[in-house]
Amino acid sequence: MIIARIVGTVVSSQKDERLMGKKLLIVRPVNLDGTDTSGYVVAVDTVGAGFHERVLVVAGSSARLATGMKDTPVDAAIVGVIDTVDISPESS
Amino acid sequence: MIIARIVGTVVSSQKDERLMGKKLLIVRPVNLDGTDTSGYVVAVDTVGAGFHERVLVVAGSSARLATGMKDTPVDAAIVGVIDTVDISPESS
Amino acid sequence: MIIARIVGTVVSSQKDERLMGKKLLIVRPVNLDGTDTSGYVVAVDTVGAGFHERVLVVAGSSARLATGMKDTPVDAAIVGVIDTVDISPESS
Amino acid sequence: MIIARIVGTVVSSQKDERLMGKKLLIVRPVNLDGTDTSGYVVAVDTVGAGFHERVLVVAGSSARLATGMKDTPVDAAIVGVIDTVDISPESS
Amino acid sequence: MIIARIVGTVVSSQKDERLMGKKLLIVRPVNLDGTDTSGYVVAVDTVGAGFHERVLVVAGSSARLATGMKDTPVDAAIVGVIDTVDISPESS
Repeated sequence: MIIARIVGTVVSSQKDERLMGKKLLIVRPVNLDGTDTSGYVVAVDTVGAGFHERVLVVAGSSARLATGMKDTPVDAAIVGVIDTVDISPESS
Repeated sequence: MIIARIVGTVVSSQKDERLMGKKLLIVRPVNLDGTDTSGYVVAVDTVGAGFHERVLVVAGSSARLATGMKDTPVDAAIVGVIDTVDISPESS
Repeated sequence: MIIARIVGTVVSSQKDERLMGKKLLIVRPVNLDGTDTSGYVVAVDTVGAGFHERVLVVAGSSARLATGMKDTPVDAAIVGVIDTVDISPESS
Repeated sequence: MIIARIVGTVVSSQKDERLMGKKLLIVRPVNLDGTDTSGYVVAVDTVGAGFHERVLVVAGSSARLATGMKDTPVDAAIVGVIDTVDISPESS
Repeated sequence: MIIARIVGTVVSSQKDERLMGKKLLIVRPVNLDGTDTSGYVVAVDTVGAGFHERVLVVAGSSARLATGMKDTPVDAAIVGVIDTVDISPESS
C-alpha cells in the first residue's frame, strides 16, 4: 500500500455501470518526509475520506477486496484514513 | 486508475479470437496540469469514448471486470469518459 | 497492452513442464514514433507472429487468458500481430 | 519479492473493517549493498517482525496468500524475517 | 517474463509456513547485451537452477502457477534455465 493525499476529484457521467455512485478521487503519493510526489492515481474512496487527508491506498486486484468493490473495474482504492505516521529510519 | 487521452488506434487482423470486435485504442496518460506524458498504453474501449477525449483507464486484472471483457486477454480498459477534473493541491 | 517488436528468441530445455512446447520470444516495447525502447520482455507467442513483426503484448495475469495459456506460469503473451497504428496526438 | 527494512508504522483508526487489528508497517526496499533505497511501501506484518529488521516483502495479489490475509485489501505483506543474505555477483 | 542471473541466496528461518523448504534466490535482471542491471528480485527456484546461471523469471500472480507454488505467498519464480538467447534487433 502507499500513503497518499487527496488532491482532487474526477467527474464522469458516461462510465461502466459498476462505477455508478462510486467516488473517484485523485490522490498524490507522498514521500516519507511528508512532501508530495509528482505522480498521481485515481482511487475509489471506500472509507469516507475527507479532502486533503492522508490516506492508505491499495492497488491492483486487492482494490476489489475493499468494501463494496467486488467485481468492480477498479485498480486503486482508499482503504484507510491515516492518523499518524511514525518514522525512525536509523537503528538505535 | 489513470487519466489518459485517446490519441490513436491499433489495427490487428491476426489476433486472439477473444479480441475480435474489440476496439483497441492508444491512450496517453496525462499529468494533473493537463499535459500529456511521454508514455502510452493500448487499452480496449468499453464505454464508446471519442477520439481525443480524456478517459479513465483501469489496468491489470481489473480490466477484465469492464463490461464485456470477462476472460479476455486485456490488461487495460477504458471504463469512463471524463467530464471534469477538479484539483486543489494546497490545503485551505 | 503495449506495442512491441520481436527481436529474439529464448531457448530453455530445463523448464516448468507447462512451458514445454511454448515459443518464448524477446520483444522490445516500441515508442509511438516507431523507435524501440531500451527495455525488453520475454513473451510467449500465441498467435504465430513472425520475426521483427510489431505485436500486441498483454502482461500480468491476463496473459494466462491468451489461447492455450490457462494455468501456465507466464506473465506476458503476444495476442496480436499489428497491421497499422494510427496516431493523431493533436486535437483537430 | 524484495528485501526491505522496517522503518516506521502507520496508525489508522478509520479503515476497512478487514484491516482492523492488522499491523501496518512502513518498509524501505534495500539495495544489495545493504543501503536503503529512497522509496517505501506500507506492508502488513504477518510474521511478527521487529523494528529495523530486514524482511522479505511479497507484493500484489500474492500478499493475500500470507497467513491471515485471505480476502483482505492488502497489496504488500511481510512474509519472512531475513537472517542472512549471501551475494556472489561475479562468476568464479 | 524477464531474463535474470542468480547472484545470491536469502536465508530466513522465521517465515510464512508455506515458504518452508522453498529456495529463495536473489536474481539480477540482465540487459540484452548480457550485462546485469542494477536492480534485483528475490525469486523462488522451482526448476533446480544453479548459481550464476541465467534463468527465466515470471512475476506477479503467475508465479503461483509454477510447480509447487499453488497458494504460496510468492510474486516471483524461476521457471526455466536459459540455454541460449538469440537476438537480431535489426530487420534484415
